[in-house]
Amino acid sequence: MEYPESPDKSTPLRVGVVLFPGFQALDVFGPVDCINVLSWSHNVTLALISSTLEPVTTKSPTSANATGQSVVPTHTFATAPPLDLLFVPGGLGTRGSSPVIEEAISYIRSIYPQLGYLITVCTGAGLAARAGVLDGKRATTNKMAWAEITGLGVNVDWVPRARWVVDGNVWSSSGVSAGIDVTLAWIGEVYGSEVARDISNSMEYTRHEDPSHDPFAELHGL
Amino acid sequence: MEYPESPDKSTPLRVGVVLFPGFQALDVFGPVDCINVLSWSHNVTLALISSTLEPVTTKSPTSANATGQSVVPTHTFATAPPLDLLFVPGGLGTRGSSPVIEEAISYIRSIYPQLGYLITVCTGAGLAARAGVLDGKRATTNKMAWAEITGLGVNVDWVPRARWVVDGNVWSSSGVSAGIDVTLAWIGEVYGSEVARDISNSMEYTRHEDPSHDPFAELHGL
Repeated sequence: MEYPESPDKSTPLRVGVVLFPGFQALDVFGPVDCINVLSWSHNVTLALISSTLEPVTTKSPTSANATGQSVVPTHTFATAPPLDLLFVPGGLGTRGSSPVIEEAISYIRSIYPQLGYLITVCTGAGLAARAGVLDGKRATTNKMAWAEITGLGVNVDWVPRARWVVDGNVWSSSGVSAGIDVTLAWIGEVYGSEVARDISNSMEYTRHEDPSHDPFAELHGL
Repeated sequence: MEYPESPDKSTPLRVGVVLFPGFQALDVFGPVDCINVLSWSHNVTLALISSTLEPVTTKSPTSANATGQSVVPTHTFATAPPLDLLFVPGGLGTRGSSPVIEEAISYIRSIYPQLGYLITVCTGAGLAARAGVLDGKRATTNKMAWAEITGLGVNVDWVPRARWVVDGNVWSSSGVSAGIDVTLAWIGEVYGSEVARDISNSMEYTRHEDPSHDPFAELHGL
């Protein structure tokens, strides 16, 4: 892995986030706000990556009457910088095969061998599965969309009861807010538990710290 | 209040969110994602309101090396539509007296009498306090920034141990992720507890449902 085991303030952590129309807002901004707070005390860069530099809406093409917010990418899939960590969020927009979704899947497939870490949030695991990068790995995903998403990765060892799962350099989380927990767990692993705890406390967030505790698996009969 | 007691699908809930440089990403996108999910089944409009229509960054002017993301406003303070509910987020950018912060405070002061509800998140309570709209009311705010923010509202009855506080039509929450809890509580009050529970479950979010439970007050010696 390119990223040093003991990060110091002189070596930036280079983070990227894949964006596409219909991404779930909290899938992105839960993890990203953890990274923003990390950047107050550590050297971090963060790229928002999509097919063009036009603002990307959270509104799914299939939800005509839904509210949506638009976020400005910093890079395209073609101009994305080298990354230590890539986040792949989920959302209604992961469904289907629009050009931007196909581009996102191709990007994940091509960048994965160069990454230190991949973190999927919610149905973002479906994009990673379609890219083939979860093949032969243990992973989890959103519990409400379980059947649909796990069907996209027949060679993935899907774990139904998990807030998040780590297999090698792939960290996959359950739905939406679980992205905050997997990100804090990852920060704890790479930067130390005190850094993760300080970020969590400053966000007044009550963490799930046990990756196997999953009340939502039960709720959805998994 | 303009907003009907029993919302139905034909009457839109008109929501606004104040944006300024250095807003905390999760202060906005925790509550906003709850509203987005609400909009999948209910009639909702959502305006992002700032001083201009230029994208607004989460990066504080005082945090030179921090990471930041830019969000596109839909309205200016001058062109904002009538609202039933206004969110005022917090963040490092609430500090000081930049032109946009002064404009935000003036906007909150002038719009407040026309609102059905005001929800402050985190240090957003400081902006509402400076606008004078919390005078004589019970309210809470971020626990790490407690002394600084409560000093901005000497006529406010600040409540130190609270995940959130309701006084009349003002709902104020503690720091950052508490914004999700106050929003779900507000949705439960206005749309019913089942709607709030369904949104929370679809976000796989473990709610704080007791407004008086506040582990972070203790952590900061309040």
